[in-house]
Amino acid sequence: MNAISTDPREIREAIRSGAYAGPTAGLAPDYVQTNLVIVPSDYASDMADLCARNPVPCALVEVLPHGRFTPACAPDADIRTDLPQYRVYRKGLLLEKRADILDLWREDFVTFLIGCSYTFEHALQQAGFVMRHHAEGKSVPMYRTAINLMPAGRLWGHMIVSMRPFKPQDVDAVREITRPYRAAHGEPVHWGDPEAIGIRRLDRPDEGDAVTVERGEIPVFWGCGVTPQNVAIESRIPYVIVHEPGHMFITNMHHEELISQSPSARR
Amino acid sequence: MNAISTDPREIREAIRSGAYAGPTAGLAPDYVQTNLVIVPSDYASDMADLCARNPVPCALVEVLPHGRFTPACAPDADIRTDLPQYRVYRKGLLLEKRADILDLWREDFVTFLIGCSYTFEHALQQAGFVMRHHAEGKSVPMYRTAINLMPAGRLWGHMIVSMRPFKPQDVDAVREITRPYRAAHGEPVHWGDPEAIGIRRLDRPDEGDAVTVERGEIPVFWGCGVTPQNVAIESRIPYVIVHEPGHMFITNMHHEELISQSPSARR
Repeated sequence: MNAISTDPREIREAIRSGAYAGPTAGLAPDYVQTNLVIVPSDYASDMADLCARNPVPCALVEVLPHGRFTPACAPDADIRTDLPQYRVYRKGLLLEKRADILDLWREDFVTFLIGCSYTFEHALQQAGFVMRHHAEGKSVPMYRTAINLMPAGRLWGHMIVSMRPFKPQDVDAVREITRPYRAAHGEPVHWGDPEAIGIRRLDRPDEGDAVTVERGEIPVFWGCGVTPQNVAIESRIPYVIVHEPGHMFITNMHHEELISQSPSARR
Repeated sequence: MNAISTDPREIREAIRSGAYAGPTAGLAPDYVQTNLVIVPSDYASDMADLCARNPVPCALVEVLPHGRFTPACAPDADIRTDLPQYRVYRKGLLLEKRADILDLWREDFVTFLIGCSYTFEHALQQAGFVMRHHAEGKSVPMYRTAINLMPAGRLWGHMIVSMRPFKPQDVDAVREITRPYRAAHGEPVHWGDPEAIGIRRLDRPDEGDAVTVERGEIPVFWGCGVTPQNVAIESRIPYVIVHEPGHMFITNMHHEELISQSPSARR
Protein backbone atom coordinates (compact mmCIF):
# COMPACT_ATOMS: atom_id res chain seq x y z
CA MET A 1 0.00 0.00 0.00
CA ASN A 2 0.99 3.53 -0.65
CA ALA A 3 1.65 4.57 2.94
CA ILE A 4 0.23 8.02 2.40
CA SER A 5 -3.02 6.92 0.77
CA THR A 6 -6.01 8.72 2.21
CA ASP A 7 -8.58 7.00 0.01
CA PRO A 8 -10.81 4.44 1.77
CA ARG A 9 -11.06 2.24 -1.34
CA GLU A 10 -7.29 2.03 -1.77
CA ILE A 11 -6.73 1.28 1.89
CA ARG A 12 -9.42 -1.41 1.98
CA GLU A 13 -7.88 -2.91 -1.17
CA ALA A 14 -4.48 -3.04 0.57
CA ILE A 15 -6.06 -4.68 3.62
CA ARG A 16 -8.01 -7.15 1.48
CA SER A 17 -4.90 -8.17 -0.44
CA GLY A 18 -2.92 -8.68 2.75
CA ALA A 19 -0.54 -5.80 2.00
CA TYR A 20 -1.61 -4.04 5.20
CA ALA A 21 -2.68 -5.67 8.47
CA GLY A 22 -2.03 -2.99 11.10
CA PRO A 23 -4.18 -0.55 13.05
CA THR A 24 -6.33 1.87 11.07
CA ALA A 25 -5.82 4.98 13.23
CA GLY A 26 -4.75 7.88 11.05
CA LEU A 27 -5.71 6.14 7.79
CA ALA A 28 -8.26 7.94 5.58
CA PRO A 29 -8.57 10.59 8.30
CA ASP A 30 -11.58 12.31 6.73
CA TYR A 31 -13.68 9.13 6.69
CA VAL A 32 -15.80 7.40 9.32
CA GLN A 33 -14.39 4.16 10.69
CA THR A 34 -16.55 1.68 12.57
CA ASN A 35 -16.46 -1.09 15.09
CA LEU A 36 -17.69 -4.46 13.87
CA VAL A 37 -19.98 -7.02 15.52
CA ILE A 38 -21.29 -10.05 13.64
CA VAL A 39 -23.79 -12.35 15.35
CA PRO A 40 -25.85 -15.32 14.18
CA SER A 41 -29.40 -14.21 13.32
CA ASP A 42 -30.71 -15.86 16.48
CA TYR A 43 -28.90 -13.09 18.41
CA ALA A 44 -29.56 -10.24 15.98
CA SER A 45 -32.65 -8.97 17.73
CA ASP A 46 -30.94 -9.00 21.13
CA MET A 47 -27.93 -7.17 19.69
CA ALA A 48 -30.19 -4.59 18.01
CA ASP A 49 -31.89 -4.04 21.35
CA LEU A 50 -28.58 -3.75 23.16
CA CYS A 51 -27.46 -1.05 20.74
CA ALA A 52 -30.80 0.78 20.85
CA ARG A 53 -30.77 0.78 24.66
CA ASN A 54 -27.08 1.68 24.99
CA PRO A 55 -26.43 4.12 22.15
CA VAL A 56 -23.52 5.91 23.82
CA PRO A 57 -21.07 2.99 23.61
CA CYS A 58 -23.02 1.17 20.83
CA ALA A 59 -24.38 3.76 18.40
CA LEU A 60 -25.36 2.08 15.16
CA VAL A 61 -23.96 3.45 11.93
CA GLU A 62 -25.54 0.59 9.99
CA VAL A 63 -27.11 -2.84 10.42
CA LEU A 64 -26.65 -5.04 7.36
CA PRO A 65 -29.53 -7.26 6.27
CA HIS A 66 -29.29 -10.94 7.14
CA GLY A 67 -26.38 -12.60 5.29
CA ARG A 68 -25.23 -9.40 3.56
CA PHE A 69 -21.52 -8.47 3.66
CA THR A 70 -21.55 -5.31 1.51
CA PRO A 71 -22.58 -2.30 3.59
CA ALA A 72 -24.44 0.73 2.25
CA CYS A 73 -21.80 2.99 3.83
CA ALA A 74 -19.17 1.42 1.51
CA PRO A 75 -20.91 -0.51 -1.27
CA ASP A 76 -17.65 -1.63 -2.84
CA ALA A 77 -16.38 -3.14 0.42
CA ASP A 78 -16.54 -6.66 1.81
CA ILE A 79 -17.01 -6.97 5.58
CA ARG A 80 -15.37 -10.42 5.48
CA THR A 81 -11.99 -9.25 4.16
CA ASP A 82 -11.66 -5.50 4.56
CA LEU A 83 -10.71 -5.23 8.23
CA PRO A 84 -7.05 -5.80 9.13
CA GLN A 85 -7.80 -8.24 11.96
CA TYR A 86 -10.79 -10.11 13.36
CA ARG A 87 -11.49 -11.84 16.66
CA VAL A 88 -13.78 -14.84 17.01
CA TYR A 89 -15.38 -15.52 20.40
CA ARG A 90 -17.24 -18.69 21.35
CA LYS A 91 -19.25 -18.68 24.59
CA GLY A 92 -17.23 -15.75 25.87
CA LEU A 93 -13.83 -17.23 25.11
CA LEU A 94 -11.45 -15.92 22.45
CA LEU A 95 -11.29 -18.73 19.91
CA GLU A 96 -8.93 -17.19 17.36
CA LYS A 97 -7.65 -14.06 15.64
CA ARG A 98 -7.86 -13.91 11.87
CA ALA A 99 -6.92 -11.82 8.83
CA ASP A 100 -10.26 -12.58 7.11
CA ILE A 101 -13.45 -14.49 7.84
CA LEU A 102 -14.29 -15.72 4.33
CA ASP A 103 -14.44 -19.38 5.30
CA LEU A 104 -16.37 -18.62 8.52
CA TRP A 105 -19.14 -16.69 6.79
CA ARG A 106 -22.66 -18.02 7.16
CA GLU A 107 -25.93 -17.02 5.54
CA ASP A 108 -27.48 -16.33 8.93
CA PHE A 109 -24.88 -13.74 10.03
CA VAL A 110 -26.09 -10.22 10.83
CA THR A 111 -23.49 -7.44 10.84
CA PHE A 112 -23.61 -4.37 13.09
CA LEU A 113 -21.38 -1.37 12.33
CA ILE A 114 -20.90 0.84 15.38
CA GLY A 115 -19.48 4.37 15.49
CA CYS A 116 -15.85 4.87 16.47
CA SER A 117 -13.91 7.50 18.39
CA TYR A 118 -11.78 8.40 15.36
CA THR A 119 -14.71 10.58 14.28
CA PHE A 120 -14.72 12.79 17.37
CA GLU A 121 -10.91 12.70 17.59
CA HIS A 122 -10.87 14.14 14.06
CA ALA A 123 -13.12 16.95 15.27
CA LEU A 124 -10.91 17.58 18.32
CA GLN A 125 -7.80 17.63 16.15
CA GLN A 126 -9.39 20.14 13.79
CA ALA A 127 -10.02 22.32 16.84
CA GLY A 128 -6.31 22.15 17.68
CA PHE A 129 -6.28 19.47 20.38
CA VAL A 130 -3.59 16.79 20.30
CA MET A 131 -4.61 13.33 21.53
CA ARG A 132 -2.06 12.11 24.07
CA HIS A 133 -1.97 8.59 22.59
CA HIS A 134 -1.18 10.11 19.19
CA ALA A 135 1.63 12.22 20.66
CA GLU A 136 3.04 9.10 22.34
CA GLY A 137 2.55 6.85 19.29
CA LYS A 138 0.22 4.50 21.15
CA SER A 139 -3.27 3.03 20.92
CA VAL A 140 -5.89 4.78 23.02
CA PRO A 141 -6.26 3.16 26.48
CA MET A 142 -9.56 1.34 27.04
CA TYR A 143 -10.99 0.22 30.38
CA ARG A 144 -13.73 -2.02 31.69
CA THR A 145 -16.00 0.00 33.98
CA ALA A 146 -18.58 -0.69 36.69
CA ILE A 147 -21.25 0.99 34.54
CA ASN A 148 -23.95 -1.59 33.90
CA LEU A 149 -25.39 -1.58 30.41
CA MET A 150 -29.16 -1.64 30.04
CA PRO A 151 -29.84 -5.38 29.62
CA ALA A 152 -31.27 -6.57 26.30
CA GLY A 153 -32.63 -10.10 26.09
CA ARG A 154 -29.76 -12.51 26.70
CA LEU A 155 -27.21 -9.68 26.50
CA TRP A 156 -25.82 -7.75 29.45
CA GLY A 157 -22.45 -6.50 30.61
CA HIS A 158 -20.41 -3.47 31.54
CA MET A 159 -19.43 -0.46 29.49
CA ILE A 160 -15.93 -0.17 28.04
CA VAL A 161 -14.59 3.38 27.88
CA SER A 162 -11.64 4.99 26.14
CA MET A 163 -9.61 7.68 27.91
CA ARG A 164 -7.88 10.87 26.82
CA PRO A 165 -6.30 13.31 29.31
CA PHE A 166 -7.19 17.01 29.10
CA LYS A 167 -6.78 20.09 31.24
CA PRO A 168 -9.90 20.73 33.37
CA GLN A 169 -10.36 24.12 31.76
CA ASP A 170 -10.57 22.43 28.33
CA VAL A 171 -13.26 19.92 29.30
CA ASP A 172 -16.17 22.20 28.39
CA ALA A 173 -14.76 22.76 24.90
CA VAL A 174 -13.93 19.07 24.50
CA ARG A 175 -17.49 18.14 25.48
CA GLU A 176 -18.96 20.69 23.09
CA ILE A 177 -16.84 19.60 20.13
CA THR A 178 -17.60 15.90 20.56
CA ARG A 179 -21.30 16.24 21.50
CA PRO A 180 -22.76 16.47 17.96
CA TYR A 181 -21.22 13.12 16.96
CA ARG A 182 -23.85 11.02 18.72
CA ALA A 183 -23.30 8.13 16.31
CA ALA A 184 -19.64 8.14 17.34
CA HIS A 185 -20.10 8.10 21.14
CA GLY A 186 -20.81 11.84 21.37
CA GLU A 187 -19.58 13.68 24.44
CA PRO A 188 -17.74 12.00 27.34
CA VAL A 189 -19.58 9.82 29.83
CA HIS A 190 -17.37 10.84 32.74
CA TRP A 191 -14.34 13.00 33.61
CA GLY A 192 -12.20 13.11 36.72
CA ASP A 193 -11.99 10.35 39.35
CA PRO A 194 -11.58 6.99 37.54
CA GLU A 195 -12.78 5.07 40.60
CA ALA A 196 -16.20 6.70 40.33
CA ILE A 197 -16.80 4.44 37.32
CA GLY A 198 -14.94 1.46 38.71
CA ILE A 199 -11.50 1.97 37.15
CA ARG A 200 -8.80 1.19 39.72
CA ARG A 201 -5.61 1.70 37.72
CA LEU A 202 -5.24 4.12 34.82
CA ASP A 203 -1.82 2.63 34.09
CA ARG A 204 -3.33 -0.80 33.43
CA PRO A 205 -5.85 -0.47 30.58
CA ASP A 206 -7.79 -3.58 29.54
CA GLU A 207 -7.13 -2.87 25.85
CA GLY A 208 -4.75 -0.45 24.14
CA ASP A 209 -1.80 1.27 25.84
CA ALA A 210 -1.39 3.33 28.99
CA VAL A 211 -0.70 7.01 28.26
CA THR A 212 0.77 9.77 30.41
CA VAL A 213 -1.66 11.87 32.41
CA GLU A 214 0.35 14.97 33.18
CA ARG A 215 0.12 17.01 36.35
CA GLY A 216 -2.79 19.41 36.00
CA GLU A 217 -4.70 17.11 33.66
CA ILE A 218 -7.71 14.90 34.34
CA PRO A 219 -8.75 11.72 32.55
CA VAL A 220 -11.77 12.14 30.28
CA PHE A 221 -13.73 8.98 29.43
CA TRP A 222 -15.87 8.22 26.38
CA GLY A 223 -18.14 5.28 25.61
CA CYS A 224 -16.21 2.82 23.45
CA GLY A 225 -17.31 0.56 20.61
CA VAL A 226 -15.32 -2.31 22.09
CA THR A 227 -18.23 -2.60 24.56
CA PRO A 228 -20.06 -5.28 22.50
CA GLN A 229 -16.92 -7.45 22.73
CA ASN A 230 -17.19 -7.23 26.50
CA VAL A 231 -20.89 -8.06 26.23
CA ALA A 232 -19.99 -11.09 24.12
CA ILE A 233 -17.62 -12.21 26.87
CA GLU A 234 -19.86 -11.42 29.85
CA SER A 235 -23.03 -12.79 28.25
CA ARG A 236 -21.20 -15.78 26.73
CA ILE A 237 -22.73 -15.31 23.30
CA PRO A 238 -22.42 -18.72 21.58
CA TYR A 239 -20.59 -17.24 18.59
CA VAL A 240 -19.57 -13.71 17.63
CA ILE A 241 -17.04 -12.16 15.26
CA VAL A 242 -15.64 -8.70 16.07
CA HIS A 243 -12.78 -6.50 14.96
CA GLU A 244 -9.43 -6.45 16.72
CA PRO A 245 -9.53 -3.21 18.79
CA GLY A 246 -7.95 -0.38 16.79
CA HIS A 247 -8.31 -2.34 13.54
CA MET A 248 -11.53 -0.83 12.27
CA PHE A 249 -13.71 -0.93 9.19
CA ILE A 250 -13.12 2.14 7.01
CA THR A 251 -16.30 3.45 5.36
CA ASN A 252 -16.87 5.83 2.44
CA MET A 253 -18.78 8.25 4.72
CA HIS A 254 -17.35 11.59 5.72
CA HIS A 255 -17.39 12.41 9.45
CA GLU A 256 -19.79 15.28 8.85
CA GLU A 257 -22.44 12.79 7.74
CA LEU A 258 -22.58 11.50 11.33
CA ILE A 259 -23.41 14.86 12.87
CA SER A 260 -26.77 14.71 14.64
CA GLN A 261 -29.39 17.29 13.82
CA SER A 262 -30.71 19.67 16.43
CA PRO A 263 -34.35 19.12 17.44
CA SER A 264 -35.71 22.17 15.65
CA ALA A 265 -34.30 20.82 12.41
CA ARG A 266 -35.85 17.39 12.90
CA ARG A 267 -39.35 17.91 11.63
CA MET B 1 -66.90 13.41 30.85
CA ASN B 2 -68.55 10.10 30.18
CA ALA B 3 -66.59 8.01 32.67
CA ILE B 4 -66.39 5.07 30.31
CA SER B 5 -65.16 7.01 27.27
CA THR B 6 -62.28 5.24 25.57
CA ASP B 7 -61.82 7.82 22.82
CA PRO B 8 -58.70 10.01 23.14
CA ARG B 9 -60.43 13.03 21.59
CA GLU B 10 -63.36 12.90 24.01
CA ILE B 11 -61.09 12.48 27.01
CA ARG B 12 -58.80 15.33 25.97
CA GLU B 13 -61.90 17.47 25.42
CA ALA B 14 -63.06 16.66 28.97
CA ILE B 15 -59.62 17.53 30.32
CA ARG B 16 -59.43 20.74 28.29
CA SER B 17 -62.85 21.89 29.51
CA GLY B 18 -61.91 21.20 33.13
CA ALA B 19 -64.48 18.39 33.48
CA TYR B 20 -61.70 15.93 34.29
CA ALA B 21 -58.44 16.65 36.15
CA GLY B 22 -57.38 13.26 37.52
CA PRO B 23 -54.80 10.65 36.58
CA THR B 24 -54.99 9.19 33.07
CA ALA B 25 -54.21 5.56 33.93
CA GLY B 26 -56.87 3.31 32.41
CA LEU B 27 -58.28 6.03 30.14
CA ALA B 28 -58.28 5.27 26.39
CA PRO B 29 -56.45 2.00 27.17
CA ASP B 30 -55.66 1.20 23.53
CA TYR B 31 -53.83 4.48 22.96
CA VAL B 32 -50.29 5.61 23.66
CA GLN B 33 -49.92 8.11 26.48
CA THR B 34 -46.77 10.18 26.91
CA ASN B 35 -44.72 12.07 29.44
CA LEU B 36 -44.29 15.78 28.75
CA VAL B 37 -41.21 17.99 28.95
CA ILE B 38 -41.22 21.58 27.68
CA VAL B 39 -37.99 23.57 27.73
CA PRO B 40 -36.99 26.97 26.38
CA SER B 41 -35.23 26.59 23.01
CA ASP B 42 -31.89 27.40 24.63
CA TYR B 43 -32.16 24.01 26.35
CA ALA B 44 -33.76 22.08 23.48
CA SER B 45 -30.51 20.75 22.07
CA ASP B 46 -29.32 19.57 25.49
CA MET B 47 -32.67 17.88 26.14
CA ALA B 48 -32.60 16.21 22.71
CA ASP B 49 -29.12 14.93 23.52
CA LEU B 50 -30.21 13.72 26.95
CA CYS B 51 -33.04 11.73 25.37
CA ALA B 52 -30.84 10.37 22.58
CA ARG B 53 -28.19 9.26 25.05
CA ASN B 54 -30.67 7.84 27.60
CA PRO B 55 -33.41 6.28 25.49
CA VAL B 56 -34.50 3.74 28.10
CA PRO B 57 -36.00 6.27 30.54
CA CYS B 58 -36.36 9.04 27.90
CA ALA B 59 -37.45 7.46 24.61
CA LEU B 60 -38.81 10.12 22.31
CA VAL B 61 -42.23 9.60 20.80
CA GLU B 62 -42.14 13.08 19.24
CA VAL B 63 -40.31 16.39 19.42
CA LEU B 64 -42.49 19.31 18.40
CA PRO B 65 -40.96 22.08 16.33
CA HIS B 66 -40.05 25.29 18.11
CA GLY B 67 -43.17 27.04 19.43
CA ARG B 68 -45.60 24.38 18.21
CA PHE B 69 -48.25 23.01 20.60
CA THR B 70 -50.14 20.65 18.25
CA PRO B 71 -48.33 17.32 18.02
CA ALA B 72 -48.35 15.06 14.97
CA CYS B 73 -49.38 12.13 17.17
CA ALA B 74 -52.65 13.97 17.97
CA PRO B 75 -53.13 16.83 15.50
CA ASP B 76 -56.40 17.95 17.10
CA ALA B 77 -54.79 18.27 20.55
CA ASP B 78 -53.26 21.22 22.36
CA ILE B 79 -50.27 20.48 24.57
CA ARG B 80 -51.04 23.59 26.66
CA THR B 81 -54.50 22.45 27.83
CA ASP B 82 -54.91 18.73 27.23
CA LEU B 83 -53.05 17.29 30.21
CA PRO B 84 -54.91 17.12 33.53
CA GLN B 85 -52.08 18.71 35.56
CA TYR B 86 -48.77 20.43 34.92
CA ARG B 87 -45.75 21.20 37.07
CA VAL B 88 -43.52 24.22 36.55
CA TYR B 89 -39.94 24.07 37.84
CA ARG B 90 -37.57 27.01 38.06
CA LYS B 91 -33.90 26.31 38.76
CA GLY B 92 -34.76 22.90 40.16
CA LEU B 93 -37.51 24.11 42.47
CA LEU B 94 -41.20 23.36 42.03
CA LEU B 95 -42.75 26.75 41.32
CA GLU B 96 -46.38 25.75 40.87
CA LYS B 97 -48.88 23.13 39.75
CA ARG B 98 -51.38 24.10 37.10
CA ALA B 99 -54.44 22.90 35.18
CA ASP B 100 -53.23 24.53 31.95
CA ILE B 101 -50.24 26.52 30.73
CA LEU B 102 -51.96 28.80 28.21
CA ASP B 103 -50.69 32.01 29.79
CA LEU B 104 -47.18 30.60 30.32
CA TRP B 105 -46.70 29.62 26.69
CA ARG B 106 -43.80 31.20 24.83
CA GLU B 107 -42.77 31.14 21.20
CA ASP B 108 -39.40 29.67 22.12
CA PHE B 109 -40.77 26.57 23.89
CA VAL B 110 -39.79 23.15 22.56
CA THR B 111 -41.97 20.19 23.58
CA PHE B 112 -40.71 16.64 24.06
CA LEU B 113 -43.17 13.75 24.27
CA ILE B 114 -41.63 10.71 25.94
CA GLY B 115 -42.98 7.14 25.98
CA CYS B 116 -44.92 5.93 29.03
CA SER B 117 -45.26 2.64 30.87
CA TYR B 118 -48.99 2.40 30.14
CA THR B 119 -47.99 1.01 26.74
CA PHE B 120 -46.08 -1.98 28.09
CA GLU B 121 -48.59 -2.42 30.94
CA HIS B 122 -51.27 -2.76 28.26
CA ALA B 123 -49.19 -5.52 26.63
CA LEU B 124 -48.68 -7.25 29.99
CA GLN B 125 -52.40 -7.05 30.74
CA GLN B 126 -53.25 -8.55 27.37
CA ALA B 127 -50.95 -11.44 28.28
CA GLY B 128 -52.94 -11.97 31.46
CA PHE B 129 -50.73 -10.22 34.04
CA VAL B 130 -52.33 -7.98 36.65
CA MET B 131 -50.33 -4.95 37.73
CA ARG B 132 -50.17 -4.85 41.52
CA HIS B 133 -50.83 -1.10 41.66
CA HIS B 134 -53.96 -1.63 39.56
CA ALA B 135 -55.17 -4.41 41.88
CA GLU B 136 -54.60 -2.12 44.86
CA GLY B 137 -56.09 0.96 43.20
CA LYS B 138 -52.85 2.94 43.46
CA SER B 139 -50.39 4.84 41.29
CA VAL B 140 -47.30 2.89 40.29
CA PRO B 141 -44.41 3.45 42.75
CA MET B 142 -41.47 5.43 41.33
CA TYR B 143 -37.98 5.68 42.84
CA ARG B 144 -34.86 7.75 42.40
CA THR B 145 -31.90 5.44 41.70
CA ALA B 146 -28.12 5.62 41.86
CA ILE B 147 -27.97 4.99 38.09
CA ASN B 148 -26.20 7.96 36.54
CA LEU B 149 -27.63 9.16 33.25
CA MET B 150 -25.24 9.78 30.39
CA PRO B 151 -24.59 13.54 30.73
CA ALA B 152 -25.77 15.81 27.91
CA GLY B 153 -24.54 19.39 27.86
CA ARG B 154 -25.82 21.14 30.97
CA LEU B 155 -28.09 18.20 31.81
CA TRP B 156 -27.24 15.35 34.14
CA GLY B 157 -28.93 13.40 36.90
CA HIS B 158 -30.10 9.99 38.05
CA MET B 159 -32.61 7.62 36.51
CA ILE B 160 -36.12 7.34 37.93
CA VAL B 161 -37.61 3.85 37.75
CA SER B 162 -41.10 2.47 38.21
CA MET B 163 -41.61 -0.85 40.01
CA ARG B 164 -44.01 -3.78 39.60
CA PRO B 165 -43.66 -6.98 41.61
CA PHE B 166 -43.65 -10.33 39.78
CA LYS B 167 -42.83 -13.95 40.56
CA PRO B 168 -39.23 -14.78 39.57
CA GLN B 169 -40.46 -17.47 37.19
CA ASP B 170 -42.50 -14.84 35.31
CA VAL B 171 -39.63 -12.41 34.78
CA ASP B 172 -38.50 -13.94 31.47
CA ALA B 173 -42.01 -13.63 30.04
CA VAL B 174 -42.41 -10.11 31.43
CA ARG B 175 -39.10 -9.09 29.85
CA GLU B 176 -40.07 -10.61 26.51
CA ILE B 177 -43.50 -8.99 26.40
CA THR B 178 -42.20 -5.50 27.22
CA ARG B 179 -38.99 -5.64 25.15
CA PRO B 180 -40.47 -4.65 21.75
CA TYR B 181 -41.83 -1.37 23.16
CA ARG B 182 -38.49 0.42 23.06
CA ALA B 183 -40.21 3.81 22.73
CA ALA B 184 -42.05 3.05 25.98
CA HIS B 185 -39.07 2.03 28.13
CA GLY B 186 -38.87 -1.50 26.69
CA GLU B 187 -37.81 -4.30 29.00
CA PRO B 188 -36.87 -3.78 32.67
CA VAL B 189 -33.55 -2.21 33.63
CA HIS B 190 -33.20 -4.31 36.78
CA TRP B 191 -34.98 -6.97 38.83
CA GLY B 192 -34.31 -8.26 42.33
CA ASP B 193 -32.26 -6.43 44.97
CA PRO B 194 -33.39 -2.76 45.08
CA GLU B 195 -30.15 -1.69 46.79
CA ALA B 196 -28.16 -2.75 43.72
CA ILE B 197 -29.57 0.35 42.00
CA GLY B 198 -29.51 2.54 45.10
CA ILE B 199 -33.09 2.09 46.35
CA ARG B 200 -33.09 1.72 50.15
CA ARG B 201 -36.78 1.44 50.94
CA LEU B 202 -39.38 -0.04 48.61
CA ASP B 203 -42.11 1.16 50.98
CA ARG B 204 -41.08 4.79 50.48
CA PRO B 205 -41.36 5.64 46.78
CA ASP B 206 -40.33 9.13 45.65
CA GLU B 207 -43.48 9.44 43.50
CA GLY B 208 -46.66 7.37 43.37
CA ASP B 209 -47.74 4.88 46.03
CA ALA B 210 -46.08 1.95 47.76
CA VAL B 211 -47.54 -1.40 46.70
CA THR B 212 -47.43 -4.83 48.34
CA VAL B 213 -44.57 -7.10 47.31
CA GLU B 214 -45.81 -10.52 48.33
CA ARG B 215 -43.68 -13.35 49.65
CA GLY B 216 -42.20 -15.16 46.66
CA GLU B 217 -42.21 -12.06 44.46
CA ILE B 218 -39.35 -9.80 43.42
CA PRO B 219 -39.48 -6.13 42.46
CA VAL B 220 -39.00 -5.50 38.73
CA PHE B 221 -37.83 -2.02 37.73
CA TRP B 222 -38.37 -0.15 34.46
CA GLY B 223 -36.94 3.14 33.24
CA CYS B 224 -39.50 5.88 33.89
CA GLY B 225 -40.46 8.99 31.93
CA VAL B 226 -40.44 11.04 35.12
CA THR B 227 -36.64 10.95 34.76
CA PRO B 228 -36.47 14.32 32.93
CA GLN B 229 -38.23 15.92 35.91
CA ASN B 230 -35.44 14.64 38.11
CA VAL B 231 -32.93 15.96 35.58
CA ALA B 232 -34.66 19.35 35.72
CA ILE B 233 -34.24 19.31 39.50
CA GLU B 234 -30.69 17.95 39.65
CA SER B 235 -29.41 20.12 36.77
CA ARG B 236 -31.38 23.17 37.94
CA ILE B 237 -32.77 23.92 34.50
CA PRO B 238 -33.77 27.61 34.60
CA TYR B 239 -37.33 26.86 33.49
CA VAL B 240 -39.17 23.67 32.57
CA ILE B 241 -42.80 22.58 32.34
CA VAL B 242 -43.66 18.91 32.85
CA HIS B 243 -46.73 16.77 33.50
CA GLU B 244 -47.81 15.81 36.99
CA PRO B 245 -46.70 12.15 37.31
CA GLY B 246 -49.55 9.85 36.29
CA HIS B 247 -51.35 12.70 34.50
CA MET B 248 -50.17 12.04 30.99
CA PHE B 249 -50.78 13.30 27.48
CA ILE B 250 -53.13 10.94 25.59
CA THR B 251 -52.23 10.59 21.89
CA ASN B 252 -54.18 9.25 18.91
CA MET B 253 -51.53 6.52 18.34
CA HIS B 254 -52.24 2.87 19.03
CA HIS B 255 -49.71 1.02 21.19
CA GLU B 256 -48.79 -1.24 18.28
CA GLU B 257 -47.40 1.78 16.42
CA LEU B 258 -44.63 1.97 19.02
CA ILE B 259 -43.36 -1.57 18.47
CA SER B 260 -39.75 -1.54 17.30
CA GLN B 261 -38.80 -3.42 14.19
CA SER B 262 -36.37 -6.31 14.28
CA PRO B 263 -33.03 -5.60 12.54
CA SER B 264 -33.74 -7.87 9.57
CA ALA B 265 -36.85 -5.82 8.82
CA ARG B 266 -34.99 -2.54 9.04
CA ARG B 267 -33.50 -2.18 5.58
